[in-house]
Amino acid sequence: MLTCRTVAELRGQIGAFRGRGRSIGFVPTMGWLHEGHVALIRASVERCGATVVSIFVNPTQFGPTEDFSSYPRDLDRDLGMCEAAGVDLVFAPDAAEVYPEGFQTTVQPGPLADVLCGPHRPGHFRGVATVVAKLFNMVRPDAAFFGQKDYQQSAIIRRMVLDLNMPMEVVTLPTVREPDGLAMSSRNARLDVDARRRAACLSRGLFAAKAAYDTGERNVERLVALARAQMGEADSVQYLELVDAETLRPVGPLVDRPAVLAVAGFLGSVRLIDNVVLGSL
Amino acid sequence: MLTCRTVAELRGQIGAFRGRGRSIGFVPTMGWLHEGHVALIRASVERCGATVVSIFVNPTQFGPTEDFSSYPRDLDRDLGMCEAAGVDLVFAPDAAEVYPEGFQTTVQPGPLADVLCGPHRPGHFRGVATVVAKLFNMVRPDAAFFGQKDYQQSAIIRRMVLDLNMPMEVVTLPTVREPDGLAMSSRNARLDVDARRRAACLSRGLFAAKAAYDTGERNVERLVALARAQMGEADSVQYLELVDAETLRPVGPLVDRPAVLAVAGFLGSVRLIDNVVLGSL
Repeated sequence: MLTCRTVAELRGQIGAFRGRGRSIGFVPTMGWLHEGHVALIRASVERCGATVVSIFVNPTQFGPTEDFSSYPRDLDRDLGMCEAAGVDLVFAPDAAEVYPEGFQTTVQPGPLADVLCGPHRPGHFRGVATVVAKLFNMVRPDAAFFGQKDYQQSAIIRRMVLDLNMPMEVVTLPTVREPDGLAMSSRNARLDVDARRRAACLSRGLFAAKAAYDTGERNVERLVALARAQMGEADSVQYLELVDAETLRPVGPLVDRPAVLAVAGFLGSVRLIDNVVLGSL
Repeated sequence: MLTCRTVAELRGQIGAFRGRGRSIGFVPTMGWLHEGHVALIRASVERCGATVVSIFVNPTQFGPTEDFSSYPRDLDRDLGMCEAAGVDLVFAPDAAEVYPEGFQTTVQPGPLADVLCGPHRPGHFRGVATVVAKLFNMVRPDAAFFGQKDYQQSAIIRRMVLDLNMPMEVVTLPTVREPDGLAMSSRNARLDVDARRRAACLSRGLFAAKAAYDTGERNVERLVALARAQMGEADSVQYLELVDAETLRPVGPLVDRPAVLAVAGFLGSVRLIDNVVLGSL
């Protein structure tokens, strides 16, 4: 497995993969890899001739009061997991390589970024879209792999790829969960024992609503209430919304098309998100 | 010469060029081609294995009170000029092909777009950066060619290519002028005979300042005044500014680095821009 620190090295190695006729799969990450990332990597290894993983905690997608400095980091551990999962190349640049002096151009998502996490994290999705556009242009993959846990992010990236005519596929894979249902997230590492135990209430609520949906309940208010009733152990629920699976706009009073029930909640100081799809995409 | 109307056709043809080992040069235009465009095309033909010209009057870079509807258009004439200049492929999409329903992601330039034309054309450079990013992703050229007449546009595109890590070269070529000095522009077609005659006052002013600079004048106020004194025949001068050639920020009180003297003025209802570089880039 190769490790590159600069865009120039990365391009050289990817050129070599391409020269040998290998297609490129790409899994962008912020490191502190977990089984969710590993599932993305495995899908890429299966479908593509060479798999590239980026590990970069992107400062521009964190707000000033958010957890950029406390976000968990352990490159050696991550490299070991990548190697074991069959990754061909890890790209782990530092911030100055990604944002050299004078950097000023951004990618601005549209209305998809104005809902759910958007209003609670001003500038977050601009930061995400910009760094992902940059990484896509560095790697020029045939396909990139994202987890459904970050449903809104996936929708925004998919839209960006269409809108900016990037010739590649965006693949979204199901959320990988802990045995108690908690969605895998690098941020789970920041939960203390008590918060970790309580954190499962978010997915429990989502699953309760999904079970009701699957047995015929279509009333949005009742579905949201069913979910909310399970979430009392969270320190707060920032939002819990049932939205159109494509536009992310509120659905109601009845669920009459594919929809997503999405939640953001705090467990102690740790903000977690999760979602379930109602209907088939 | 091939003509494509859709992105899919375009990609197919460019894939065929690439398959034959040809590098791709790209000249994005809004049509109504003139000798300035032809110079860009010739440079591309000379340097690259295949030359692609796009002809698309991009609605998103025009303000609501601007000249989108009156912008001159004549595809047959343009195709003839392209063929004569050695173009391999003309891409002439319609607006729905470039901006399908649901389009919402934009490329936002930074401070380079906040000066000179920026404040007078809100959203203009966002529209330019977005469509150029799209065209670059459609064509994936090795090099793209722009005219120095649109100095600020060139600077913004160059910055975008760096900031978004697009693996390509941006080449800026000198402004091509009419015998009386007027910078070639598709918009010149909209000048009536009297305005056309008076329009040369803009370049006359720029040249007067440049002549003074070349013989040692470094005082910004005096250089600007020298230029301004020639521009009385314009119906109005929207701005006349001496700025840093790289940052586009005002230079003063002395010109102590490479700089650009840039002007926007109205001749009747037609807004024209022009510039000269002071010093060497």
